[in-house]
Amino acid sequence: MTESISAERLAGLKEEFRRGFIAWVGYRVDEIDAGRLTSRLDVRPEHRQQDGFVHAGVLSAMADHTAGYAAFTLVPDDHRILTIEYKINFLRPALGPELVCRARVLRAGRSTLPCEADVFDRDGDREVLAARALLTMASVPATRLNRSPG
Amino acid sequence: MTESISAERLAGLKEEFRRGFIAWVGYRVDEIDAGRLTSRLDVRPEHRQQDGFVHAGVLSAMADHTAGYAAFTLVPDDHRILTIEYKINFLRPALGPELVCRARVLRAGRSTLPCEADVFDRDGDREVLAARALLTMASVPATRLNRSPG
Amino acid sequence: MTESISAERLAGLKEEFRRGFIAWVGYRVDEIDAGRLTSRLDVRPEHRQQDGFVHAGVLSAMADHTAGYAAFTLVPDDHRILTIEYKINFLRPALGPELVCRARVLRAGRSTLPCEADVFDRDGDREVLAARALLTMASVPATRLNRSPG
Amino acid sequence: MTESISAERLAGLKEEFRRGFIAWVGYRVDEIDAGRLTSRLDVRPEHRQQDGFVHAGVLSAMADHTAGYAAFTLVPDDHRILTIEYKINFLRPALGPELVCRARVLRAGRSTLPCEADVFDRDGDREVLAARALLTMASVPATRLNRSPG
Repeated sequence: MTESISAERLAGLKEEFRRGFIAWVGYRVDEIDAGRLTSRLDVRPEHRQQDGFVHAGVLSAMADHTAGYAAFTLVPDDHRILTIEYKINFLRPALGPELVCRARVLRAGRSTLPCEADVFDRDGDREVLAARALLTMASVPATRLNRSPG
Repeated sequence: MTESISAERLAGLKEEFRRGFIAWVGYRVDEIDAGRLTSRLDVRPEHRQQDGFVHAGVLSAMADHTAGYAAFTLVPDDHRILTIEYKINFLRPALGPELVCRARVLRAGRSTLPCEADVFDRDGDREVLAARALLTMASVPATRLNRSPG
Repeated sequence: MTESISAERLAGLKEEFRRGFIAWVGYRVDEIDAGRLTSRLDVRPEHRQQDGFVHAGVLSAMADHTAGYAAFTLVPDDHRILTIEYKINFLRPALGPELVCRARVLRAGRSTLPCEADVFDRDGDREVLAARALLTMASVPATRLNRSPG
Repeated sequence: MTESISAERLAGLKEEFRRGFIAWVGYRVDEIDAGRLTSRLDVRPEHRQQDGFVHAGVLSAMADHTAGYAAFTLVPDDHRILTIEYKINFLRPALGPELVCRARVLRAGRSTLPCEADVFDRDGDREVLAARALLTMASVPATRLNRSPG
């Protein structure tokens, strides 16, 4: 796993992380390093489901996007990351007021990067594991992005 | 698999489907029947990711919530559905302008209901399979909802 | 998805399917076509677990290998298939005396091929769905096989 | 998570682990504790696939069974464990001559127990992570075992 990523590239990815759907929901980068990313979300009323818990979709998107950008730190500058697939287990309902997601690349393959991501339900200093995900990311040359992940 | 669900209960679930995060993102029920649900989403700019595709998180939440409410049609009135886990494969980037999700229960167990959900990228009459999910739902008495899915 | 696979290549894959672990456990090809494969297993006492059901591992290996060879029918002759990952849901305990697995490729990407596989518990003419799997296969040039799936 | 499991019960589970399919393939318990299990396998020629690697099915069954018995240590004596589902990522081909699997329960729910399991390819003192699995186990009263996991 190459560890030679520049501080500039990390700063660029941190900025790029927060666009479109991700900015709209409110996720942000907390820490970024080669093969690792931590993100956070301040839970808002619109993130909840019918029973008052944070919607599983909010946790899933967080695990997916956080792992995707952890993978981004390990691929060439002219490559993009697409999610091939993932699986997520919901261990406990998340209540907020904050979520923290920690993701890391398990193996930096040439074209696929398996990752894991944990989503914690955070209240002050108390953190409880709410969900665990196992994900597969694809590294794709940007020039082939109009096509599909495969 | 009980097929005795009343039209009233179906109408109630259709209404209840669209709350909190789900209403905010914009998903809506198209068709609902015992063990089956079809939902739709008009893609908006805030649903997209950095490359212009619909964010994977939008597809995931749709698969999860649609399957969850398909499961809801097969459990007693005093039970709620929680997602234990799911896995989703992204087959092709989704572009919009519309997404359609079709979910069905594979087996209505007493406490767990495995389901499948397909998300289609739709443009006019053209539908392309964008993602496929395999999910496990838990049927939980409402009185135990303050606890966890297990 | 190319459908131009020759009868010779199909016959070769059918032969190659049954080697090593697969031959030892006893799986065999029933039908093979472009992007599709059906396999069978006569359940033997050594396939069972502590409660008398067929061991989940027997169903998993069947789903995995059958989907892998379904993918094999859609890649160039000098490529090999490796399993990147899969997920499997066990819907009902399998009793035998026979298992049938039907697998198909969902999308024949250049480097990854998502597949699905169903394992049926079969007794005479009665078939019951025992497990469903969603899998991701990698198409790898044979010359790079000493390395890893990524 | 109850830690009150007796040494007797652990010894009984260690014994029971190795039956039917599991004994036939050759898996054995190395260490067992509340919520944790380590198993081993001496790789034999019949465990390999067409390219000489250990068959993915051998790794999967190991992850599944090891996690299942890790879960067994945390349920009442009159309950049995059934696998609801699992997902496994293959990170690197396994060569042997030995496999080691370490599994642990992530959360001991009343009826479902999410677990994780890592399979290592071992040669002397060198261990390489070959596969990682995320699994959901069901705790079922033995009296209901003739029915299904749900």
